[in-house]
Amino acid sequence: MPSEIRVYGLDGVPEVRPGDDLVSILVDALTASGLILEASDVLVVTHKIVSKAEGRLVDLATIEPSAFARDWAAQHEKDPRQVEVVLREATRIVRMSRGIMICETRHGLVCANAGVDASNVPGDSVVCLLPLDPDASAAHIRDGLRQRLGVAPAVIISDSFGRAWRKGIVNVAIGVAGMHPFADYRGVTDPYGYDLSVSGMAVADELDATAELLAGKTDARPVALIRGYAYPAGEGTARDIVMEPERDLFR
Amino acid sequence: MPSEIRVYGLDGVPEVRPGDDLVSILVDALTASGLILEASDVLVVTHKIVSKAEGRLVDLATIEPSAFARDWAAQHEKDPRQVEVVLREATRIVRMSRGIMICETRHGLVCANAGVDASNVPGDSVVCLLPLDPDASAAHIRDGLRQRLGVAPAVIISDSFGRAWRKGIVNVAIGVAGMHPFADYRGVTDPYGYDLSVSGMAVADELDATAELLAGKTDARPVALIRGYAYPAGEGTARDIVMEPERDLFR
Repeated sequence: MPSEIRVYGLDGVPEVRPGDDLVSILVDALTASGLILEASDVLVVTHKIVSKAEGRLVDLATIEPSAFARDWAAQHEKDPRQVEVVLREATRIVRMSRGIMICETRHGLVCANAGVDASNVPGDSVVCLLPLDPDASAAHIRDGLRQRLGVAPAVIISDSFGRAWRKGIVNVAIGVAGMHPFADYRGVTDPYGYDLSVSGMAVADELDATAELLAGKTDARPVALIRGYAYPAGEGTARDIVMEPERDLFR
Repeated sequence: MPSEIRVYGLDGVPEVRPGDDLVSILVDALTASGLILEASDVLVVTHKIVSKAEGRLVDLATIEPSAFARDWAAQHEKDPRQVEVVLREATRIVRMSRGIMICETRHGLVCANAGVDASNVPGDSVVCLLPLDPDASAAHIRDGLRQRLGVAPAVIISDSFGRAWRKGIVNVAIGVAGMHPFADYRGVTDPYGYDLSVSGMAVADELDATAELLAGKTDARPVALIRGYAYPAGEGTARDIVMEPERDLFR
């Protein structure tokens, strides 16, 4: 039989609220699925439920927009309060054109609207922010699973970003624990002796993309378990994936 | 049991040579795997074996580098003949800095070195180019499988590209047949009534990334079969994923 990877989407994850014990929710979902968690598994968690549990929600009714936010919102038919939240979450603006605001966040991520998102959030005027420290959130989940189930899988927290030059959005890893985010090809050559050490497949991002196939945009399945992939174990972070601005040709 | 996707990496694909019948090679690999191909499957094929079968190989010994190629190569310790090939494969240069040449190809793809690659190619001075028309190559494979096996899965041809703002490379779809490259969320709202129609997950790229988890950088498994993912059937192309230059904020 061929080499095989299995991707499971966990059902029955309830609407998560601020203060919820996310580890307990994950343990319950795993139990209900009938899957026995293994250390060699990769657990991919949509950032939205992490942000919700961590209370990273803002009621726009509490926001007083700045003049800059009001001006941009008026030009592009946006909610000025939401624009204000985006500005507050951005450390700098990478591109601001044609109604699109691409920002750099405190985590070094480059994405539209600094990751501020109104979808899949209860309440007409509530938006969801990125977790403050998604790498720490991933580590917290991993530690919690080790305590509760005696098993520490790799944990990735995902979000969906647009990208340069290509339409549509794909999932990327914004938080990582228990694995290196890149496949390690140091010392590896191809069958013809060609040195592949600089290749660096960003496997954390690829695992995220894999998980999204089951998640569905309505976040019906915000947790996926990937089994059969020999992830590069270690103490990596999603911050490792961010290109340093001085090296980035597109900042 | 939870929702499940299975990803199979097909073993035993031989070194492909110009003129080889790629459909026959794929049929043999599927047969050897014991998998019975289904129309609901997605077959992901590394572009390298498509290029090899199509003879998209260049012996650098036949290349006379231009002055521009020699100059750039001298500055950055590169093979001027390979630089010349890159220039010939590029329709324009997007960034040329710090020894890195990011080009736009005839397909509208934006990638380093216009996709010209020396790895996994037999011969000291042979490089591999992208297929001339990867969408057509994908359609050819799909039609061939329909003729030989009576089944037409979705077919994606993949390559590994770097991206702006993030380190490492990930697989993207450079050729597509039998499916729309984006998940269709028109008319879909989240549980709170929020319209998700603009979301556009680039599922063809995500399926590629999934397949790469099994491929391995040495291309030991250049063909993957993804089963259980309800891909959006249709007449899409990888060209649909390319952002039009006039809309792209990073060209």
